[in-house]
Amino acid sequence: MNKIKIFSPATVSNVACGFDILGFPIESLGDEMTISKSKNIGVRITKVEGYPVPIDSQKNVATVSAEKLIQDLKPNCGFDIEIKKNIIPGSGIGSSGSNAAGSVFGINKLLGDPLTTKQLIKYAMIGEGISSLSEHPDNVAPALLGGLIMVKSVEEENIISLPIPNDLFCFVINPKIEVKTSYSREILPSKIELSSMTKQVANFGALVHALHTSNYDLLRLSLVDNVIEKHRKKLIPSFDKVKNKCIELGALGCSISGSGPSIFAITKGKDDAIKIDIEVKKIYKETNIDFSTYVSKISSDGIKIIDSI
Amino acid sequence: MNKIKIFSPATVSNVACGFDILGFPIESLGDEMTISKSKNIGVRITKVEGYPVPIDSQKNVATVSAEKLIQDLKPNCGFDIEIKKNIIPGSGIGSSGSNAAGSVFGINKLLGDPLTTKQLIKYAMIGEGISSLSEHPDNVAPALLGGLIMVKSVEEENIISLPIPNDLFCFVINPKIEVKTSYSREILPSKIELSSMTKQVANFGALVHALHTSNYDLLRLSLVDNVIEKHRKKLIPSFDKVKNKCIELGALGCSISGSGPSIFAITKGKDDAIKIDIEVKKIYKETNIDFSTYVSKISSDGIKIIDSI
Repeated sequence: MNKIKIFSPATVSNVACGFDILGFPIESLGDEMTISKSKNIGVRITKVEGYPVPIDSQKNVATVSAEKLIQDLKPNCGFDIEIKKNIIPGSGIGSSGSNAAGSVFGINKLLGDPLTTKQLIKYAMIGEGISSLSEHPDNVAPALLGGLIMVKSVEEENIISLPIPNDLFCFVINPKIEVKTSYSREILPSKIELSSMTKQVANFGALVHALHTSNYDLLRLSLVDNVIEKHRKKLIPSFDKVKNKCIELGALGCSISGSGPSIFAITKGKDDAIKIDIEVKKIYKETNIDFSTYVSKISSDGIKIIDSI
Repeated sequence: MNKIKIFSPATVSNVACGFDILGFPIESLGDEMTISKSKNIGVRITKVEGYPVPIDSQKNVATVSAEKLIQDLKPNCGFDIEIKKNIIPGSGIGSSGSNAAGSVFGINKLLGDPLTTKQLIKYAMIGEGISSLSEHPDNVAPALLGGLIMVKSVEEENIISLPIPNDLFCFVINPKIEVKTSYSREILPSKIELSSMTKQVANFGALVHALHTSNYDLLRLSLVDNVIEKHRKKLIPSFDKVKNKCIELGALGCSISGSGPSIFAITKGKDDAIKIDIEVKKIYKETNIDFSTYVSKISSDGIKIIDSI
């Protein structure tokens, strides 16, 4: 294989109480990346279409991830990367994660899969790290693996595919204003109340239990974030209005995706997600901010190969 | 039924990353309580054998719990409570929780079970509250329900029986020095690092997943407390020595039970628990502190009825 074209999905991360540890892919949105072997050693961005990202290989998350992978795998060739960027940078739905994951996935495939997909996560995280103040794996892991992924740490045994009840869907709205991940981290307090921790731990434990037992009532009680959302929602126009509408229309939970400004809701069944889509669009039209929305099954698919030669 | 005699178990709480939310009963240790209907309205402690607890019904956790229950149920009789106290107060293994749970369990039985066992938890917690700075349900809930119980809050739908892999045992050592729950709460910081919260959340989520999947390797990785143990271990002689020995001998995890000074270890199989028992006894004999140890299956039994007439 000399050339591979992949679809690398956008991802919802910081899923409610799962701050920095839980994420899942959005089926219907992602970047296309074409990666080709080259006689020229090293990794380069040779083309960017769609939304702009850095061409400089020191600054592009795809090349930064890839460089680290290549340092370890020492292939006898280089790689050219083309990106068709459909995910807006700074939108809170894993724009950088998509490319950081896509490049290492593609290169690993071109080299005959020397590493497992789980092993690729730590490389993807290194790229992801340059776009925020800290390296966090809750976008790259679900992009690579698909499904609802909990990452306790980057070692393989700490990357956990949680069960997904049959009927889980998500709605996502991406207001087209940029919130820098680094800024969105800065506004968080460095310390929190011990009692807030206990609540977050309990909610996350209950969420994991609810997923294992397909307990939708418990999902509704546990898809809650008492720690992060209250700080970051100030950066998102009409957040409370959108959230209240989602809950009113039956969402199991609603919170900020990644570091915002995207907002996600999780629903039981597609119908609720579609109803939410219709009503939240009405709310956002009043803001005069451009936006896109997505309705997607919470699926077990991660990066998909579109073509290879 | 006019009189009931019950065994109300000691409980391990604050199970590693499950601070204030996770506990389980110790099969082989508990208080015996005999509760009788009386023509005299109200609740009284009529006898205490074994370790001392207050006779004053305003100060005894059993009567405080019971008073609240009686306020709501309005029975046309009163109750006399005898306690044979085998659990040392202030030992970190649910001494007060045992009695707070036992009294409401017994009275509810004598009244023909007007409430479910889950509904009794909030009453038991009220009694438990007078022995510490805050009401916390992770002793009374497992004492009442049996099993490995996670309490997100006291509402029924937030009380969760977690699955227990077949082969889980615990070892507990109770050094016979008193650590007041209230003091042990005071030495905790009121605020913690956000990154510490994320670790605790991830560990607890992984623990719940590991229990559902009988994944002993993941149990070992997740039965960890990075937040509380480091503060409270100072109150417990030879804590590090005991913990290191437990881990060396194969324990899946080891931490402080409740607010200490008791220490628990969780093992795969009884053999490891017995080995730990032998070696930890040697360590504690060197301290010249009196102590007891217990080896117990992590069982699904809570309070047991010994006799009733």
